[in-house]
Amino acid sequence: MAHEYDLVILGGGTGGYVAAIRASQLGLKTAIVEKEKIGGTCLHKGCIPSKAMLRSAEVFRQSKNAQQFGIDVSDVKINFSAIQNRKQTIVDQLHSGVKSLMKKGKIDVYYGTGRILGPSIFSPMPGTISVEMEGLENEMLLPKNVIIATGSRPRNINGIDVDGETIMFSDHALQLETLPKSIIIVGGGVIGIEWASMLADFGVEVTVVEYGNRILPTEDLEISSEIEKLLKNRGINIVTNAQITSDSIKIENGITVSATVNNEVQTLEAEKMLISIGRVGNIEGIGLENTEIETDSSFIKVNEAYQTKEKHIYAIGDVIGGMQLAHVASHEGIAAVEHIVNGKISHLNSQNIARCIYSYPEIASIGLTEQQATELGHGIKVGKFPFKGIGKALVYGNSEGFVKIIANKDTDDIIGVHMIGPDVTNMISEAALAMLLDATPWEIGETIHPHPSLSEIIGEAALAVDGRAIHI
Amino acid sequence: MAHEYDLVILGGGTGGYVAAIRASQLGLKTAIVEKEKIGGTCLHKGCIPSKAMLRSAEVFRQSKNAQQFGIDVSDVKINFSAIQNRKQTIVDQLHSGVKSLMKKGKIDVYYGTGRILGPSIFSPMPGTISVEMEGLENEMLLPKNVIIATGSRPRNINGIDVDGETIMFSDHALQLETLPKSIIIVGGGVIGIEWASMLADFGVEVTVVEYGNRILPTEDLEISSEIEKLLKNRGINIVTNAQITSDSIKIENGITVSATVNNEVQTLEAEKMLISIGRVGNIEGIGLENTEIETDSSFIKVNEAYQTKEKHIYAIGDVIGGMQLAHVASHEGIAAVEHIVNGKISHLNSQNIARCIYSYPEIASIGLTEQQATELGHGIKVGKFPFKGIGKALVYGNSEGFVKIIANKDTDDIIGVHMIGPDVTNMISEAALAMLLDATPWEIGETIHPHPSLSEIIGEAALAVDGRAIHI
Repeated sequence: MAHEYDLVILGGGTGGYVAAIRASQLGLKTAIVEKEKIGGTCLHKGCIPSKAMLRSAEVFRQSKNAQQFGIDVSDVKINFSAIQNRKQTIVDQLHSGVKSLMKKGKIDVYYGTGRILGPSIFSPMPGTISVEMEGLENEMLLPKNVIIATGSRPRNINGIDVDGETIMFSDHALQLETLPKSIIIVGGGVIGIEWASMLADFGVEVTVVEYGNRILPTEDLEISSEIEKLLKNRGINIVTNAQITSDSIKIENGITVSATVNNEVQTLEAEKMLISIGRVGNIEGIGLENTEIETDSSFIKVNEAYQTKEKHIYAIGDVIGGMQLAHVASHEGIAAVEHIVNGKISHLNSQNIARCIYSYPEIASIGLTEQQATELGHGIKVGKFPFKGIGKALVYGNSEGFVKIIANKDTDDIIGVHMIGPDVTNMISEAALAMLLDATPWEIGETIHPHPSLSEIIGEAALAVDGRAIHI
Repeated sequence: MAHEYDLVILGGGTGGYVAAIRASQLGLKTAIVEKEKIGGTCLHKGCIPSKAMLRSAEVFRQSKNAQQFGIDVSDVKINFSAIQNRKQTIVDQLHSGVKSLMKKGKIDVYYGTGRILGPSIFSPMPGTISVEMEGLENEMLLPKNVIIATGSRPRNINGIDVDGETIMFSDHALQLETLPKSIIIVGGGVIGIEWASMLADFGVEVTVVEYGNRILPTEDLEISSEIEKLLKNRGINIVTNAQITSDSIKIENGITVSATVNNEVQTLEAEKMLISIGRVGNIEGIGLENTEIETDSSFIKVNEAYQTKEKHIYAIGDVIGGMQLAHVASHEGIAAVEHIVNGKISHLNSQNIARCIYSYPEIASIGLTEQQATELGHGIKVGKFPFKGIGKALVYGNSEGFVKIIANKDTDDIIGVHMIGPDVTNMISEAALAMLLDATPWEIGETIHPHPSLSEIIGEAALAVDGRAIHI
């Protein structure tokens, strides 16, 4: 039997389900095809479970440090299965919330693998969706429009057998039943650094192996240097300029890696290994071959309205590459739906998208790094302010880090904001609003940041751009 | 001996010292006259020490709850003298920082009582400052301009003898050496509620007595109701519509209060009492009688440039009344200095000033309440979103509260933002920037708030204004 829809979305992750909700708000008859669980990577294998575990790591750290706040505690211990249970309870609660939102929006969810079919008796254009469900007959969906939101999966090193036990992706690490004694994390990007920070908090010996010459290579150089210093202070071993191939890895009583570091071989040993070297788009088995849709390596190519070469088939989120963040996927999903309904093009400006790293300390940034700005030939002025100068940071008990604001010397436009320190992943939103509204540092400086608050640092850094910071 | 200055500031509190720094940046030869310690009430008797103690209360609460995060702890105990020591260490560190800033800015600080003299052989206008220092000869300062920033002190109930032991102001409570078993807090405003929350966290039996029909009477009604519910859930006794006079207070083995509540007498008993019913301006003994300066009750009257009736004498901060917040004082100080130097009038718009309450949960708000907006005849639309719908709030382990955004139905201007819940005192700054830049809810909704972050609630509440929230 064939079901007609205004919109069928392949993939019920953050991008897909948010698109479905907006479509429902705008009156579209909408369905999602999801092969595992609604909520996708972010809810089940990514952002949410990892942040839940990071929060437990933070509570562990803070409880051990309670004495510095005048609170005596004893016997602070990790109950790892309780941490895993709490994580799962949060995921389950949010999962059930998203399922309710689907019901409330009258969004049909088909659990199975969706495949785009070519032109047929049902439709002169490709776009009919065949939903393949184990043990059941296929369902046929006849949508006017399709959004592909099939997401991504961890990228592997060529030739390595990721068994999920000794060699893991982050998906596997989230399911650990006990903490390893030691771990080698391959890849010093966002995921690698979050895991390094969390596991170090939990007392695991951590080595981060990074191919580039610094960890977090896409962040501002000063941010990379600061986090590298702070992680090393916490006992994390960081090896940069390191090459690893499948041949250099031996599994026997744990794992031994012979990394080539600046042309010399360095031997690293640990109980487990986590591979976090990026993510590839899920473009296989969804019927792209039945369409004119183009791809570039593992990602689907789209235009500024998020349309593929088939104008009625859109693609959003991780499967189109780019920043591969949940908040990007959801805004792209909304943009695609608005284009379907109103013809309005609202392509995301990557300069207005905040990037967050939930390590200790946290990192949040938006716009260009100082290096990028200089390479692009911008004449810039830079304001920087340390958390040490912020009263509330002392009160909070965590005054490491800084905020750095980069502005165009001639136009006064803010072109980058880079934050490392307490609570920056919440506070970056002020910078995101400032970027969206083309605010100047002067306007942020004029904004009355409440005292005492951590957010005062944004006002001070903005004033510092023109040499007018107060508390420095 | 007489010293000439471009600017002399009476009072080295937040308003005064920030004004001095900006004056120094703009090239004015500047002095401060301070009768106690530079940093004033905020640093020594207000914001900073109280927030330091509130932070210890939070760490105590979180350590007791660590188990819910999978962290086992035992014997969580308050070491109150260590809490006091930590508080003092932070105050001392910031005090020393402010003193360094004075040196760096080449700002002279005279420790003594400054009094404005009338016209004399030194000056045809009033404004010469006599600095009276114990055991020393007076210093005479000859300024071109004066800023009065003498601040405020706690308001008392008529006829009550505040001994600092059984009956206290917040200044005294900050110096407590041991925690009382029980306390009556008179006044359910910001200071009263912060102390109620903190002391309840520390295990003190707390009764709040409020004259009005609700606590936090200047906040939005829904905020008042929510915090009242949550404080009551924590065992705090809240008595509203309650009148207390000096006659109704008896000191004998602690304190007994016969409060008149809705025309009936209710007897309340506790070990100590804290009076927090507002603050009065410090206008005495500073020579106002030698000038044309006008006052209104205990506050100095100023024009929109912060000038008194004597155009070269400005007044800023708590001593001019209004919102009596440190961040208001500092921005008023900057505005006064900019007017002295550039003639630029930049009167603070009270609608753009955030108000923060550092209770548990925190409260932060800006602009009009729903009640004020309606009374002023605004046609409004309201968006509200609960923290329960925010994934990061579940991760954080604290999902009580909500954010409410009030916009003008016709112009789409945001006219009020009201937040109660985790981290709102940092996140209100985004709303402050939005108000300053006349942003619309749509623009805040377009702003990409990172996921997962608590700040997503601001985006959702903004979308809710037009019925477009996603996760509800």
